[in-house]
Amino acid sequence: MSFKIAILGASGYTGAELARLISTHPSFEIAALSANSKAGQSMSSVFPHLRHLDLPTLKTVKELNFSGIDICFCALPHKASQQVISALPGNLKIVDLSADFRLNDPGAYEKWYENPHQAPDLQKEAVYGLTEFYRREIAEARLVAGTGCNAAAGQYALRPLVKDEVVELDDIILDLKCGVSGAGRSIKENLLHSEVSEGYNAYAAGGTHRHLGEFDQELSKVAGKEVKIQFTPHLVPANRGILATAYVKGNPREVHESLSRAYEKEVFLEVLPFGETPATRHVRGSNYCHIGVCGDRIPGRATIVAVLDNLAKGSSGQAVQNANVMLGVEETAGLMMAPVFP
Amino acid sequence: MSFKIAILGASGYTGAELARLISTHPSFEIAALSANSKAGQSMSSVFPHLRHLDLPTLKTVKELNFSGIDICFCALPHKASQQVISALPGNLKIVDLSADFRLNDPGAYEKWYENPHQAPDLQKEAVYGLTEFYRREIAEARLVAGTGCNAAAGQYALRPLVKDEVVELDDIILDLKCGVSGAGRSIKENLLHSEVSEGYNAYAAGGTHRHLGEFDQELSKVAGKEVKIQFTPHLVPANRGILATAYVKGNPREVHESLSRAYEKEVFLEVLPFGETPATRHVRGSNYCHIGVCGDRIPGRATIVAVLDNLAKGSSGQAVQNANVMLGVEETAGLMMAPVFP
Amino acid sequence: MSFKIAILGASGYTGAELARLISTHPSFEIAALSANSKAGQSMSSVFPHLRHLDLPTLKTVKELNFSGIDICFCALPHKASQQVISALPGNLKIVDLSADFRLNDPGAYEKWYENPHQAPDLQKEAVYGLTEFYRREIAEARLVAGTGCNAAAGQYALRPLVKDEVVELDDIILDLKCGVSGAGRSIKENLLHSEVSEGYNAYAAGGTHRHLGEFDQELSKVAGKEVKIQFTPHLVPANRGILATAYVKGNPREVHESLSRAYEKEVFLEVLPFGETPATRHVRGSNYCHIGVCGDRIPGRATIVAVLDNLAKGSSGQAVQNANVMLGVEETAGLMMAPVFP
Amino acid sequence: MSFKIAILGASGYTGAELARLISTHPSFEIAALSANSKAGQSMSSVFPHLRHLDLPTLKTVKELNFSGIDICFCALPHKASQQVISALPGNLKIVDLSADFRLNDPGAYEKWYENPHQAPDLQKEAVYGLTEFYRREIAEARLVAGTGCNAAAGQYALRPLVKDEVVELDDIILDLKCGVSGAGRSIKENLLHSEVSEGYNAYAAGGTHRHLGEFDQELSKVAGKEVKIQFTPHLVPANRGILATAYVKGNPREVHESLSRAYEKEVFLEVLPFGETPATRHVRGSNYCHIGVCGDRIPGRATIVAVLDNLAKGSSGQAVQNANVMLGVEETAGLMMAPVFP
Repeated sequence: MSFKIAILGASGYTGAELARLISTHPSFEIAALSANSKAGQSMSSVFPHLRHLDLPTLKTVKELNFSGIDICFCALPHKASQQVISALPGNLKIVDLSADFRLNDPGAYEKWYENPHQAPDLQKEAVYGLTEFYRREIAEARLVAGTGCNAAAGQYALRPLVKDEVVELDDIILDLKCGVSGAGRSIKENLLHSEVSEGYNAYAAGGTHRHLGEFDQELSKVAGKEVKIQFTPHLVPANRGILATAYVKGNPREVHESLSRAYEKEVFLEVLPFGETPATRHVRGSNYCHIGVCGDRIPGRATIVAVLDNLAKGSSGQAVQNANVMLGVEETAGLMMAPVFP
Repeated sequence: MSFKIAILGASGYTGAELARLISTHPSFEIAALSANSKAGQSMSSVFPHLRHLDLPTLKTVKELNFSGIDICFCALPHKASQQVISALPGNLKIVDLSADFRLNDPGAYEKWYENPHQAPDLQKEAVYGLTEFYRREIAEARLVAGTGCNAAAGQYALRPLVKDEVVELDDIILDLKCGVSGAGRSIKENLLHSEVSEGYNAYAAGGTHRHLGEFDQELSKVAGKEVKIQFTPHLVPANRGILATAYVKGNPREVHESLSRAYEKEVFLEVLPFGETPATRHVRGSNYCHIGVCGDRIPGRATIVAVLDNLAKGSSGQAVQNANVMLGVEETAGLMMAPVFP
Repeated sequence: MSFKIAILGASGYTGAELARLISTHPSFEIAALSANSKAGQSMSSVFPHLRHLDLPTLKTVKELNFSGIDICFCALPHKASQQVISALPGNLKIVDLSADFRLNDPGAYEKWYENPHQAPDLQKEAVYGLTEFYRREIAEARLVAGTGCNAAAGQYALRPLVKDEVVELDDIILDLKCGVSGAGRSIKENLLHSEVSEGYNAYAAGGTHRHLGEFDQELSKVAGKEVKIQFTPHLVPANRGILATAYVKGNPREVHESLSRAYEKEVFLEVLPFGETPATRHVRGSNYCHIGVCGDRIPGRATIVAVLDNLAKGSSGQAVQNANVMLGVEETAGLMMAPVFP
Repeated sequence: MSFKIAILGASGYTGAELARLISTHPSFEIAALSANSKAGQSMSSVFPHLRHLDLPTLKTVKELNFSGIDICFCALPHKASQQVISALPGNLKIVDLSADFRLNDPGAYEKWYENPHQAPDLQKEAVYGLTEFYRREIAEARLVAGTGCNAAAGQYALRPLVKDEVVELDDIILDLKCGVSGAGRSIKENLLHSEVSEGYNAYAAGGTHRHLGEFDQELSKVAGKEVKIQFTPHLVPANRGILATAYVKGNPREVHESLSRAYEKEVFLEVLPFGETPATRHVRGSNYCHIGVCGDRIPGRATIVAVLDNLAKGSSGQAVQNANVMLGVEETAGLMMAPVFP
């Protein structure tokens, strides 16, 4: 059985990553690709690394025919996504990779994204796509909202600890180190090789990063009360990878046990032995997330380090995993490739 | 049907790459791993990116039991390889990734590797592992010698041209740009990040690189007379990738046609439209080789640019492809993963 | 004695590099900076690495007052440069870093740059700024045209050989490996970190790169007859550096002697012992050019490898060196900083 | 007036950086270089980027003649340093770059470095080399102990806050991102380009990094009571640079004012406007340290980000600055070069 797949916004990095993953998926077949600004071009001219694949030509969204499409991945920028998805057939299964449907509350959306939501009904309908925690809801969802890549990394490190109440909830610090591709293929001065390579910096410091909206929503839901974390991302000179270092107050062994227990049966979430910490290069190109916990010379402090590939487990890999769940396919289908190292 | 695989020298980069590729191979199963210096360790402690796989513990070669092994990949350093392979069961199918069995002539071996060959009978028996050109021999071989990664890149650019006599044979210049992993996981000052990143240099200049032995043997065989090319490799700050720029004298269109014709049916060899040139980043992590040809403002000159991933198509991917042929499996099995970009 | 300096186009990389070099120049003082698109901003907001310097605010060219300016560096894009310089005071000393005045012949300019020159008189007046070969003319020039960075690297490798006739003039192949900053701070998709890092590729293959205009002009002038070289640049993932590999037909020892003799008294041009080849990382951030020569196993072939920092010796360092000559200052003033390694 | 300089351990990165800085120092002249393992070699064979300098040949320490030497930089590994310095003339001025004399307390030394100190008298005599805070003592010292590069970055961010008591002293978290050259030119698997580039990881997590000994000693001294911070360094794929992100509890504006006031007259310490954060690439190759402060959406939280070049301000630049102070030279002599960007 083969499912027909459409990808909207196929000319960006998450679009390309979807095509890469689906190219070896046993039961998915790419049937339609859109990229408004590059409509008419072949995918191999936009992404020559996919040259060997026999992919449909890029079209505008309007030109696509969705009859026969089993699931649609929407890899558009936020704001554009809600407009486009509103106009799609109402019974089409959709995995959205943008930020548009991550926040359920219209007020929260407007606060973090500075514009009123234009599809509030869809916003209510959407299921938050952190697969391991919303599997049942995703299986029944029509519209799944892929999480922020930073938000995914942070939540894998923190959710079980908040749920199990093994850490102080008002004193969680999350320091992220993020690869460049998280910013997408957008053409900006600060993303040039000359500006990024051989240096690094904090950005969106001071609690201003939009993924905080997701942390607030999700961690508060888990805790049953408001939880606000302190979160600072840093840009490092690597293309793929997020490394989340979480500083918490709690018993390190209990922290480790909480995570180990929570992820015991998860294929993609690997908790390292106590005291070991992971590296982004060991998950690159794959759907795995490695998580380590260690104590500190100061009693009652624990450090959690979680790594994942922002384009894979952080967005497109997660999206395929969600699509598998939505379509009743084996959840790991197409996602078992090992990381590429070195 | 599942074949049992052994990998000798599994703690090096080509060993890790074999494990990565085989981990999603539909009919291969890793049954034994050796790494003398790291015997007793788990593969995941040596290569944490393979942590999710259930792999055998590393052993010494002597500790391994080869009964039940269908094929053995030998990813040892040259010189060590010939000693180890001599002592293996005589009916064991072997793909060797070292330089030890690439040259058929004992004199040529001794000239380039500065020591007499210690297994001259095996040397004679071995089949040169450039799959697309030795498919039939490989299918019947017991011992296949993987090619040098530089030699593979250069030969994909040049063999058809030599065979079709569309270029001057005494004036071929090959300028290579090579990623760092080609030097393996050897711990040398000149391979440190601080020494490699943000800079580049020629090495083995002046016709001293050992892969010239392979070029001499193979191109002369194809031409039916002695062919000597001029060859200079350069180290560039990237982990994977070889880009071969070949400067030849001949009609550019004929050069392009020669390559297009030769590789028309090859799954892994992609000839670009005339005038386009490829990039290493478009084959990274994959078994593909992209080849471009362009002319020059000076008539009668052509430039061929070929790219491949030295760890994949240049060594471990080629090795799996050869093993597939030797075992009668679909030649592309386990090798259809798309390149990882960015 | 302190000379007042103006820099036009100060918001680009060569502008920043000029400011860096001049910041420790014993007799230069930056008195005016222009950057039309960023006029009104401080230099430290555009280039925070210059934050410690007390620099003039960026203005438009029109807002600048050139009275009292001793020399003006023009770091504008080609085409813009000829327009701006035409409108500057006729007695102002100028070092232009663009391509606009490198070619003396209006026809050649139009051929390579695809538009007719708009200041043909200035074009005639301009002196080609390869300091070591035009020192006397530069000392008396009002307008000096900085060379292309690729053209500089190639000429340092080749000019003495052409002059001394130690190589075949109709068979010179120049393979360049170029850092990313050579493309300037222009915001283009192919210059993004995600597109450049960890990969490399040829560009402007087939004899189409504009610096060929300079090679044609200069090498033909040296030879006294038309010389056309074959030239292919490659983009490598490093910010600074050009490595020129020249393949020539001639006696390697004679080639080495020719270069050694020519550069014997040059402070910035270092010829390595015969058989050694240089690395870009050993000239990074400096005004030095290292040149090596080796022979080949094929008699009568020589390979020359020259390296320089495209932003320093390849453009802004060269420009300061030329300004020193024009103003009668010690030629090496402000330029003796050692390379930054690692 | 020119001072004669000796550098012991000149074949490491801090040795090379000393030579680079001193090469343009107006009153320092390198008179002797040692490197036991490379004795007999020229400095240009060990560091070709210094090829243009006329430097003494490398010798063993024993071969050096210290009469006439005005100051000796000791860039040896810890443990070796205390042995070598013990045997040097008792009146020789020394700037030590190792860890051997940073901790005044023999017990603390033994705790962090796991061996008893072999020169406890010298340990007592040594002055801690954080120039801006020990200027007077350094001016009169014979032996100055260069600080750890991480310790320098962290202290620049934290000392004034501890002194001014504007932050909670028992809840300081310091998350460092460190370039690779901080590990020196040591030949280790985890420092290979293939292992480092394109990835990042925490190391010495859990309060085990040796620089904590310095933080404990210095911050407790400033506070007048025991202060223990939580400190986790991370290795990022860049050669130079430390970025320290400090998470503190206190009023962000007061934090900013405390730092601004403390560094108002410091040439090399630049405090950015409130709310801005710095980047390592803006101090690379220079002796500058940029420091930024921002608040958080959670009241009473501040984040301080400090960046410096570990080889310059973090070790060799600091060492030259200290030598200037010790010799009564202008403190900034030889150190005013601008950062190299890009």
